Amino acid sequence: MTAALLDGLTVLEISSFVAAPLGGMTLAQLGADVIRIDPIGGAADQHRWPLAPSGASLYWAGLNKAKKSVTLNFRDPDGQRILTDLVAASGPGGGIVLTNAVGRPWLGYDQLARVRPDVIHLQIQGHHDGRPAVDYTVNAGMGFPLITGPEEYQAPVNHVLPAWDIACGLYAAIGLLSAERHRQRTGEGSQITLALEDVALALTGNLGFLAEAQLAGTDRPRIGNHLYGGFARDFATADGERVMVATITGRHFADLATATGLTGTFAELERLLGADFAADGDRYIHREVIASLLAPWFADRDVAEIGRQLAGTSVLWSRYRRFTDLVGDLLRDGDRASDGDRASDGDRASHPLIREINQPGIGRVLASGSPLAREGRPDPEPAPLLGADTAAVLADLLGLSAQDIGALADRGVAGSGHPGGSP
Amino acid sequence: MTAALLDGLTVLEISSFVAAPLGGMTLAQLGADVIRIDPIGGAADQHRWPLAPSGASLYWAGLNKAKKSVTLNFRDPDGQRILTDLVAASGPGGGIVLTNAVGRPWLGYDQLARVRPDVIHLQIQGHHDGRPAVDYTVNAGMGFPLITGPEEYQAPVNHVLPAWDIACGLYAAIGLLSAERHRQRTGEGSQITLALEDVALALTGNLGFLAEAQLAGTDRPRIGNHLYGGFARDFATADGERVMVATITGRHFADLATATGLTGTFAELERLLGADFAADGDRYIHREVIASLLAPWFADRDVAEIGRQLAGTSVLWSRYRRFTDLVGDLLRDGDRASDGDRASDGDRASHPLIREINQPGIGRVLASGSPLAREGRPDPEPAPLLGADTAAVLADLLGLSAQDIGALADRGVAGSGHPGGSP
Repeated sequence: MTAALLDGLTVLEISSFVAAPLGGMTLAQLGADVIRIDPIGGAADQHRWPLAPSGASLYWAGLNKAKKSVTLNFRDPDGQRILTDLVAASGPGGGIVLTNAVGRPWLGYDQLARVRPDVIHLQIQGHHDGRPAVDYTVNAGMGFPLITGPEEYQAPVNHVLPAWDIACGLYAAIGLLSAERHRQRTGEGSQITLALEDVALALTGNLGFLAEAQLAGTDRPRIGNHLYGGFARDFATADGERVMVATITGRHFADLATATGLTGTFAELERLLGADFAADGDRYIHREVIASLLAPWFADRDVAEIGRQLAGTSVLWSRYRRFTDLVGDLLRDGDRASDGDRASDGDRASHPLIREINQPGIGRVLASGSPLAREGRPDPEPAPLLGADTAAVLADLLGLSAQDIGALADRGVAGSGHPGGSP
Repeated sequence: MTAALLDGLTVLEISSFVAAPLGGMTLAQLGADVIRIDPIGGAADQHRWPLAPSGASLYWAGLNKAKKSVTLNFRDPDGQRILTDLVAASGPGGGIVLTNAVGRPWLGYDQLARVRPDVIHLQIQGHHDGRPAVDYTVNAGMGFPLITGPEEYQAPVNHVLPAWDIACGLYAAIGLLSAERHRQRTGEGSQITLALEDVALALTGNLGFLAEAQLAGTDRPRIGNHLYGGFARDFATADGERVMVATITGRHFADLATATGLTGTFAELERLLGADFAADGDRYIHREVIASLLAPWFADRDVAEIGRQLAGTSVLWSRYRRFTDLVGDLLRDGDRASDGDRASDGDRASHPLIREINQPGIGRVLASGSPLAREGRPDPEPAPLLGADTAAVLADLLGLSAQDIGALADRGVAGSGHPGGSP
């Protein structure tokens, strides 16, 4: 087995919800030792929906896989001091703090740099000036909800995927890795602030949306499921499903025309309109007429037949799946026979990224490790039960005895490690 | 000025569209030397919409800031050999290749590891098995479009933000940094594959969607702009705008009740329903009645008044902005007087992340650097003109003379660096 990429890295994470936990988990799944430290009883995300039949949070379990869990009473100065001690004691690859908690001086860079001058401290917050924000409010301010959804619709359409939180968590991982590289080279620590709104602004700008609105002075129209500046759209099929079809290059479009028998029709249409459908812009401008010519071909065929006819072409397409469809596909028995290790574990997952793991507090669930695939990529590890590693971490990093740890638990400074709460 | 975090890192990027270019740019904006190498005339994303009035792509410019641009004829074995030579010659922090090009053996890990055994090679592709896919087709398969949009709507609603591409690009940056750390410690290179679908599957699973569908056996309902498992929604205002309001904790909700004068009403409602609105789940279950009680308060007030009344509370909210609104806010004159350096540059941007830069081929546009804020964060750098750095890179890394480079350009192996095409 090849060594994990992030062997020797130790990250202390004081976090909640999506961004910071995802950032920490991304590093944990690459081999870092990530210790999430929560208040006793858990943070505000401990019981976040969706829930398992057991009542445990599938959300928390999903975002905290492969970590250790420690619980401390942060309101007690001794609890705060233990956090400081962990920062100081976490070794040459440690002294790395990831948090989205704000307004806690004992957790701030200045305080921690006093005990460890080379600390790497990354603070996630809502706005650059420290005001709070969440994905849903940041998204409202960014422009996307007013160009998402059916063309005839007027009101905003929120995204369901917390895309800004995801990007923020991944940027946090990038920030920590970059700062650790810098520390290796120079000995210097880093204080990094990462605002969720800044993440959204940067990405909105990177994709050209800001410059477009600035230079054109007008807003991009709402175009339903069409692709801006190209030709891609959804089509209804004969079996009541829908498929998404995308042509990102001229070759894709030519292949789609051939497969649907419309090459001649499109050529005549191009002459008629003075257009060139090999060009992205012309496919976009004439998207409605192109789509209406294609629609009957899809409406006459079921998904399986569409798949057969588009196979071997460059056309990019997919059936729209419900989450239950997706899970059904991931649990297909098809590949099991060929994967002896999995079958003997009773693992029914058919995709190389996905495993059925035994998640404490929940049971057998589909889970993944890092999407970064490399020889020796380990199977996904479950999330810990809340506080399960408190005693082990205090013993390993701080050298506390079982007696010391018991006393801290009795005084309510550290969690007992026997949580009534499951994750 | 503090040194950039990624000083000394050199990345060769053979890329197009969003994911790979974003991954490279993320490293470039943290100080890495990122050299994007395109075919002469540009890759398939060279003219991608949105376009500037000049005809240049705002999308390309936005996703390739702070890089160098080299153009080579990849169909010519000499062009391929130059790429190999660059990998070999790019120094101890080099030998790092990021690409989304598939099916090109001369660009594959095996070939490059022959000239540089410690090469770090990250290949972005559509599916784990090498089949192509794009954000729009991956998204269709992931389940989100069928739970996005108005409750009464039946058809899928695609996202406009290419969220999976963004996440994929950021994971690529994480993969390269992790592999470089591993190489520093062990001397070993890495071969990493990153499938866009795997990114989407991992994140969908991380957020609990897979486990939820697996364990419940049913699909989450379409809930419009409501937040699943909590209370957050949009409301119409007296001045014809809409605001997004989010209560992520019991305290947020209590503050919202106080601000809107509904504390007593909600208390009576809780008794009536046997509910506890301090609990996320109960706020979610009773979201419609809560929203209908709140709606008149928002409908009676304009956005400014709502802002005044929610100021100083913990309630999270935002006006929905069009992209033009957002740009207007970013160009406000308010802060300019206090920022002498910017004003003297004619920079009208009012947000610390954002600058007006002079983008070759386009002119003055809003742009950002990395959202990772750190003392000494540099101002955003523009994107290069296509091929602008060809001669300089071939001279610096390969030691070629001006004569050699001229000969390569004359033979059409390397770009001339005088592109007819702008970026």
